[in-house]
Amino acid sequence: MSDSPLAPGATVGILGGGQLGRMLAIACARLGLHAHIYEPGGERPPPAAEVARHWTDAAYGDDAALDAFAAACDVVTLEFENIPVATVERLARRVPVRPGARALAVAQDRAAEKTFIAETGLSPAPWAAVDGPGDIAAALAATGTPAILKTRRLGYDGKGQARIADAAGAEAAWAAIGAEPAVLEATIPFTAELSVIVARGADGTVAAFDPGRNEHEHGILRRTTVPAGLTARVLQDAVLAAGRLATALDYVGVMGVELFVAPGGRLIVNEIAPRVHNTGHWTIEACATDQFAQHIRAVAGWPLADARRHADAVMTNLLGDEIDALAAHAAEPGVAIHHYGKGAARPGRKMGHITRLAPLSG
Amino acid sequence: MSDSPLAPGATVGILGGGQLGRMLAIACARLGLHAHIYEPGGERPPPAAEVARHWTDAAYGDDAALDAFAAACDVVTLEFENIPVATVERLARRVPVRPGARALAVAQDRAAEKTFIAETGLSPAPWAAVDGPGDIAAALAATGTPAILKTRRLGYDGKGQARIADAAGAEAAWAAIGAEPAVLEATIPFTAELSVIVARGADGTVAAFDPGRNEHEHGILRRTTVPAGLTARVLQDAVLAAGRLATALDYVGVMGVELFVAPGGRLIVNEIAPRVHNTGHWTIEACATDQFAQHIRAVAGWPLADARRHADAVMTNLLGDEIDALAAHAAEPGVAIHHYGKGAARPGRKMGHITRLAPLSG
Repeated sequence: MSDSPLAPGATVGILGGGQLGRMLAIACARLGLHAHIYEPGGERPPPAAEVARHWTDAAYGDDAALDAFAAACDVVTLEFENIPVATVERLARRVPVRPGARALAVAQDRAAEKTFIAETGLSPAPWAAVDGPGDIAAALAATGTPAILKTRRLGYDGKGQARIADAAGAEAAWAAIGAEPAVLEATIPFTAELSVIVARGADGTVAAFDPGRNEHEHGILRRTTVPAGLTARVLQDAVLAAGRLATALDYVGVMGVELFVAPGGRLIVNEIAPRVHNTGHWTIEACATDQFAQHIRAVAGWPLADARRHADAVMTNLLGDEIDALAAHAAEPGVAIHHYGKGAARPGRKMGHITRLAPLSG
Repeated sequence: MSDSPLAPGATVGILGGGQLGRMLAIACARLGLHAHIYEPGGERPPPAAEVARHWTDAAYGDDAALDAFAAACDVVTLEFENIPVATVERLARRVPVRPGARALAVAQDRAAEKTFIAETGLSPAPWAAVDGPGDIAAALAATGTPAILKTRRLGYDGKGQARIADAAGAEAAWAAIGAEPAVLEATIPFTAELSVIVARGADGTVAAFDPGRNEHEHGILRRTTVPAGLTARVLQDAVLAAGRLATALDYVGVMGVELFVAPGGRLIVNEIAPRVHNTGHWTIEACATDQFAQHIRAVAGWPLADARRHADAVMTNLLGDEIDALAAHAAEPGVAIHHYGKGAARPGRKMGHITRLAPLSG
């Protein structure tokens, strides 16, 4: 792939075939590009295959399938950060992969992520590495209590976290997370959770959507609201932080940066997601170019769009059987509805979302 | 199909596989519905197949293919009004077709269309039926000069029209249109061309997007601008006219109504398109629910969305090799880009469009 924009008719490979891959595939089609989904698990066919020209049904460790996929694609991207780095490295020897292995390596290891955030001059939550239960007492001195013990590598199933109230809980917490290399994180008494969806183009230009304010329930995103209702200074700091992280990673594409607003307005960088992000779904209706089109523009070497919004928006996830209320939501004024086409509505599973639009408030 | 909304996982058949079918298929996916394209000609695969689960590659007269298509679909709609009525009637005996044969019959015959418009209490351009060159002198008395002779049945290729300056041109005009049953239409000294994209639900509710002002070049739409820059009374009259036509047809789905604004603000109904419409593409970015999602909501028996816009918009078609400027347009602020994924960029062919968004002006 040269530095010139990918021509219409070219093929974008997408690792992962869930709802994010589905929305990326739609963005590909609108740019005149073909989407080729690589998805080894889950639904048959996966949600993204519905709107993609091609689907490879093979494991992330299937070298022959990976090589054929690389040969069929002009550029490869991903909808999911827990792709094995070896998979990405194999592909990257054959076809450009955007974002690259560096961003994935940082996002897949909480210790690497926090180290990177601090090296970039930003603040992660106070933390310490924990390689065994014996490390926990010293780590608690760095974080204070209560603190959260989290495995360094992300789990696929939301497990791998345990709360520690005091040093006496160390052994139990270590066992609870599966006795794996971990980090201990301070709990931040935050006043708000923000996220910034930031894009960086192949030419190094950066464009960020307006920060959204997030509400989680039971560890799952419930709602993102834009505008976030915070001071201009805090919002600007959040955007600058996200841009700085993207540039430091030499990132190409859209990434989601989650931040906590600590009392006094200080920002703590909580997490970097090297992909389009659930907290950016409001951009589908509220921006001329949404996060998915922006991501595809970036990975295809096209100019980034400005990321201005032209409406206020509240995006609400529909989890599990909440999806059954979609027709009722459809009847509400100003509500856009999205169904991800998944089969089983397991509790907590992201089945769809709705976005309520309101006139731009500034 | 009962009166209850089509459940996610159901299949919407779409007759026609061009760019309108493509955008309808995307709307299906977002509602959790499968799209099944029926397209006998043109590109291989057709633009809509890129984002649809199924594609039937068969002629509109292939009864076995039609029956299999009907059996595979829960409801059938269309992106193209020149589907043979016999095709629609055969399907309609097996599966609900929305909109139905009545709307198609009206839209496919200019004489039936003008008669219907007048019966609905609205004004077509002055016209007269012409069944042979000998009818033209009398017809000119009804229309004045210059007038346009048009075949009653629509041509697939934009042919079938001839301008007549006076009665002496009758024979030549008749030959030019292919000596087919025709109508003679007055030329209206209009001050503006408008279109209204109106939706009617299965329950009879009606919702119209804000009227757009259209500019044509060489008979092809160049640009649609919203707001249209006309008085509130004219815009309201246009919306009421479109709603009245949809209701009179017992229409289900989205339709496009083209109108001329004559001096003094009187509205002339020029044409009814029983489908989503090029002049409604601006709704993709400027409305919470665009014309495609609105159409699928209607044909699937879901509640209609309100059709409010939250931004001003100018949609410009990219014809023929103008599509090569897409990357340049992508760099302009506030511009959304669309490439239809077609192969040959023949002169005048609709290859894509761009929409410039601006803050809502009221």
